[in-house]
Amino acid sequence: MLFKKVVIAGVGLIGGSLGLALCKRNIVPQVVGVDPDQDNLELAVQLGAVHQGATLAEALTGADLFIIATPIGVSLGVLEMALPYLQQGTIVTDVGSVKGRLVERAEAMLPAGIHFIGGHPMAGLEVAGVSGAREDLFEGACYLLTPTEKTEPAALIRLRGLIECLGATPMELDYREHDEAVAVISHLPHLLSAALVNTVSYDAKEQLLLTLAAGGFRDTTRIAASNPLMWRDILLTNRSMVLAAINKFRVQLDKIEQSIEQFDPDILVDALTRAQNLRSTLPENRKYRLRDK
Amino acid sequence: MLFKKVVIAGVGLIGGSLGLALCKRNIVPQVVGVDPDQDNLELAVQLGAVHQGATLAEALTGADLFIIATPIGVSLGVLEMALPYLQQGTIVTDVGSVKGRLVERAEAMLPAGIHFIGGHPMAGLEVAGVSGAREDLFEGACYLLTPTEKTEPAALIRLRGLIECLGATPMELDYREHDEAVAVISHLPHLLSAALVNTVSYDAKEQLLLTLAAGGFRDTTRIAASNPLMWRDILLTNRSMVLAAINKFRVQLDKIEQSIEQFDPDILVDALTRAQNLRSTLPENRKYRLRDK
Repeated sequence: MLFKKVVIAGVGLIGGSLGLALCKRNIVPQVVGVDPDQDNLELAVQLGAVHQGATLAEALTGADLFIIATPIGVSLGVLEMALPYLQQGTIVTDVGSVKGRLVERAEAMLPAGIHFIGGHPMAGLEVAGVSGAREDLFEGACYLLTPTEKTEPAALIRLRGLIECLGATPMELDYREHDEAVAVISHLPHLLSAALVNTVSYDAKEQLLLTLAAGGFRDTTRIAASNPLMWRDILLTNRSMVLAAINKFRVQLDKIEQSIEQFDPDILVDALTRAQNLRSTLPENRKYRLRDK
Repeated sequence: MLFKKVVIAGVGLIGGSLGLALCKRNIVPQVVGVDPDQDNLELAVQLGAVHQGATLAEALTGADLFIIATPIGVSLGVLEMALPYLQQGTIVTDVGSVKGRLVERAEAMLPAGIHFIGGHPMAGLEVAGVSGAREDLFEGACYLLTPTEKTEPAALIRLRGLIECLGATPMELDYREHDEAVAVISHLPHLLSAALVNTVSYDAKEQLLLTLAAGGFRDTTRIAASNPLMWRDILLTNRSMVLAAINKFRVQLDKIEQSIEQFDPDILVDALTRAQNLRSTLPENRKYRLRDK
């Protein structure tokens, strides 16, 4: 048995899906949920996402794994609150989309013998809350871990083992490299999608535009329907990397814009062909969509 | 019977799907295809997308509807080539994504008694060619028509009737308004998608980024896999409207970027919430996707 008691703080979509997998597959004999929303916690128990709900203090007694699955805006605060109750040997991880700040603060804050390893499962849905949780959300997904030179190898091996039980593939990455990469591949698409929707929203002919909106617009803006508060925290927490990603994007947008402005079909075709070539190599392996539900 | 002989120039995805619907549903007794690619034309006959193939001159003899379904870069040239063979009373339409240039030139070029009405079915797939054609591609779609003050009302009524037989909803729109609207709702998403893929493609860590690419990136960039030559022609033909759309987008991108730069959570949440609200009202009614095939 890898772990005997796992505590999940924040039993939402990700925390709930982790819990469902751990409970239903009997990977861990005791999974305890902590959530400020009592109704949500009761729902999580009903759905089988956790075996029981508890306060942070109760839950952490005897726990050997503590998963912080709250919105990233509060994850550091949750860790601080948990600090007095964490026991020697406990492994602490999180599931946040930005790693730098939390990894640095957690390593500075935690005493020797309590092991923090940043985590980020590359899976999700546009829905929020435990009601959207799925036992198999992490099947086939890449699960990033950001160990540092301070990380205890044995703790890392145990956490990797748990991730493999979820059907996911653990992948180790420097936390700075992680934040730089997700800024481009995840945070940038999100804010571009929002800016595109707002371009329509502020247009005097908004209603006509929406009538004409076909598949291309729908696809390109699907992620703009996500939770604004969650994304506020992600974008502000990863601020410098996100600003750098916007700058990189502007270089490519400028190139396309100039080729249109200067009526240069060759440069325009080069840009469109380069994009087509790369995009065509990406497999369409996403399992879940809102409309599947 | 609305029409007795329909000629489709360019039997690709759209022309082929129009032909399939007209043939298989017995809406028109004679559907003739014209295509410079002889193999494609034979395939179109085999698939039942047209009853037969012919040269432009042969095809147009006795035709009462001529549909130009070529890439927009050559539609004007095809109309010029067809001019000597068009007969009094024939209705000419097209299916292009940009209307202004063709509508103005066609009305200036065609003699009295030959009626041009610009058309643009709001349906499509990322695949090209008649092999991807579907009889029901236009079912439930909005089919835009851009009549002008010169348009003969009787011709418009007949064309609307045919569109209704396809299961689509005809909608009339000023051609300038059309081009302005599609620049924002269709052409802008396309070029943003290409610029986003190229941001990854030119990144030194391209391979890492692609490994991490999850659903958000896939959705946002799906349309970047479309035909670069077709899109070159669309973007350059609708040049001024596309440049205006890019400027409108930049205003929204700047707003989000500044809110991150200045660490202003309220303005950032406003922008993300506005996008979420609008995007959440859009139905996911797209029927076809590449992966459905």
